[in-house]
Amino acid sequence: MIERRATIPFSEARQLITEHVERLQPVSAALFLARGMVLAESIYAPFPSPYFRRSGYDGFAICAEDDHDFPITLQVVAEVPCGATYNKRLNPGETVRIMTGAKVPEGASKIIMLEQSQVVEKPEEIRLINSQPHSNITEIGTEFQTGDLLLEKGHQLNAGSLSLLASFGVTEVKVWPKPKVAILSTGSELVAAGDTLPDGKIYNSNEPLLVSLAEDYGAEVVYHEALSDDYEATRARLEEIAGEVDLILTTGGVSVGDFDFMAEIAKREAKLLFNKIQMRPGSPTTAMLFEGTLLLALSGNPGACFTGFHLFAEPALRKFSGKPSSILEVKGIMAQDYLKNNGYDRFLRGKAYFSNGEYQVEPVGSDMSSSLGNLPFADCLIMIPRGKVGKAKGEEVRVWLLSSKS
Amino acid sequence: MIERRATIPFSEARQLITEHVERLQPVSAALFLARGMVLAESIYAPFPSPYFRRSGYDGFAICAEDDHDFPITLQVVAEVPCGATYNKRLNPGETVRIMTGAKVPEGASKIIMLEQSQVVEKPEEIRLINSQPHSNITEIGTEFQTGDLLLEKGHQLNAGSLSLLASFGVTEVKVWPKPKVAILSTGSELVAAGDTLPDGKIYNSNEPLLVSLAEDYGAEVVYHEALSDDYEATRARLEEIAGEVDLILTTGGVSVGDFDFMAEIAKREAKLLFNKIQMRPGSPTTAMLFEGTLLLALSGNPGACFTGFHLFAEPALRKFSGKPSSILEVKGIMAQDYLKNNGYDRFLRGKAYFSNGEYQVEPVGSDMSSSLGNLPFADCLIMIPRGKVGKAKGEEVRVWLLSSKS
Repeated sequence: MIERRATIPFSEARQLITEHVERLQPVSAALFLARGMVLAESIYAPFPSPYFRRSGYDGFAICAEDDHDFPITLQVVAEVPCGATYNKRLNPGETVRIMTGAKVPEGASKIIMLEQSQVVEKPEEIRLINSQPHSNITEIGTEFQTGDLLLEKGHQLNAGSLSLLASFGVTEVKVWPKPKVAILSTGSELVAAGDTLPDGKIYNSNEPLLVSLAEDYGAEVVYHEALSDDYEATRARLEEIAGEVDLILTTGGVSVGDFDFMAEIAKREAKLLFNKIQMRPGSPTTAMLFEGTLLLALSGNPGACFTGFHLFAEPALRKFSGKPSSILEVKGIMAQDYLKNNGYDRFLRGKAYFSNGEYQVEPVGSDMSSSLGNLPFADCLIMIPRGKVGKAKGEEVRVWLLSSKS
Repeated sequence: MIERRATIPFSEARQLITEHVERLQPVSAALFLARGMVLAESIYAPFPSPYFRRSGYDGFAICAEDDHDFPITLQVVAEVPCGATYNKRLNPGETVRIMTGAKVPEGASKIIMLEQSQVVEKPEEIRLINSQPHSNITEIGTEFQTGDLLLEKGHQLNAGSLSLLASFGVTEVKVWPKPKVAILSTGSELVAAGDTLPDGKIYNSNEPLLVSLAEDYGAEVVYHEALSDDYEATRARLEEIAGEVDLILTTGGVSVGDFDFMAEIAKREAKLLFNKIQMRPGSPTTAMLFEGTLLLALSGNPGACFTGFHLFAEPALRKFSGKPSSILEVKGIMAQDYLKNNGYDRFLRGKAYFSNGEYQVEPVGSDMSSSLGNLPFADCLIMIPRGKVGKAKGEEVRVWLLSSKS
């Protein structure tokens, strides 16, 4: 008896999955470990920047009373390197030698640049040749006043964000954490690279694929294991893992064969979301809630696994962390014919070239779901809608630009 | 006495730095740790793929002799799950129940899909209703023959590459390693975030900036430290570090003040490459070979440090690992006026928007080299050439698109 499954369009599958993702609880994270994460709070300046009157140049601080009739000769009462202070008030007739970035003494109104100074006979005096129009002093709060918004809730922290926050002494931030993911490849035919390969078995290529993609797209992979084709063992392992992760990704076992245990588990042990999508490759892609944990069961065919990850797992992973999908849908123009008959919408692994304001796209390598020679080169997915004719060169298609970071 | 420095254009500075970068020696790396690295060898298929005749469907393998006059009834002589084998030759009148991905027995010429099968009374027999035009068998070497090129020398390994290589049992690859970088911030005024801030001192924001950027652009940061303003101590620490890293990045101390020790070290202890660039911010940016190790001394002003990293450090870091710069230069159109007089070429931190086939660009935040409020938001650098007029809205400018990963 062959099971008949209810099919849904891929867009509905995508929506069903993200609907079952809830943004994670924000956590406190050390600033330097939070790069790439999204702020769960707005951050305001705890003090003004600069918080002292800062010298913009190397030179000599003078009082307003002395700022006329140059050249003038003043008494050097102190030297103020960066990070030091002169704690008295500067009086007319006095100057301090001051460095770029140092605190300008009270009473000083201008920094005369070093280039305008001349050594005189008395070492405690300095001759200043000319004044300048600008004060060369950055006043308190020039860039930020206390309470000014530095970074808004929802901002994804990058190198510049860490730098800005560090300048205010921030060491911890509230962020949405990375989702914890378990990656389970199923199938007794799988052998880990490095082991000897008995006849009829194959090296496991989906597990490294999914681990790498999940990390690229911002997940923390806490388990990755190959499970053998044993229903009870698979169920037991899923039960152990379900409470500990935010998403379980599996490959293989979703078809209608006698050893397709993930399909069985979806029906017997979980709340099924869908198990048949009107798309190729990967029509038996299955999603379920297993003890409340979202489980996306991808096909074991590498092409289907790659495609399914980008269409279904990526938006889920991103949503857990408060981020929109990083895979943009754009309009593409076919750079060559693809004229096959497609019973379902077909997703081709492709390459996109931007020229003259358009994305020219073409399939890369084979469209077989079992092929994986094109996985290193695909930078987009091209949708060929179901129908007898395919898409000819020059026709418009829907394209998803992959944004993997490696 | 104010030192006069010889100035060079920024493009010459950029070239002088990359000229002094030699690609690192390739290393062997575990495949799963090599993501993002560049292959230093081409990799060829060690065996064909698939290496056995693979069933494309769940179903029943039959001999050519039986492939006519359907429906037919055949004797089921074995069940071949994925990863198992049937080691005898299939004879006419016989069939094996076979799963998707399993090895097709010798003698079999076609897989009849499970959907075309009917159980009959005798459990050791099966009735097959119809044949199909395709064999549903993927022949040996369909995707790759032994010796076919899998990935070319120079390919940057991504998730798909790891998957492809894993499918051939590859566990180690020759790659150009990440460059080892030391990041040293100089200045007695610097305090680490988390410490209390004495009057006149500031929190260190350049060190987290450079550590993050260096990692984003593919370096391994092996040291990051703040050095105080002490010539001998600075020189001694540089001597300890120089032999252990590929690039030393420093911030601060490059100007002409009394505490600008990096400038002094460049003159007295190293082979100076340049110490004055015709650009703002960051004109005193200095490069040298310190005991043979490339040392790029960036300005301590955050805006200059950010700009200098992207223009000078990034291409160097990438070249060490066999990669071209990831920061593309494009033509941009000013989306608003910037009409200041510039004595040198000025690089603005900006934002770029792609629309109608053009990059519209505009400055983001302040152009002061001491400001850092815009570092989290800048995604490009905009060059305003030296001159009295600046650039008006609608004018064309040179733009560098930053590609930081976080």
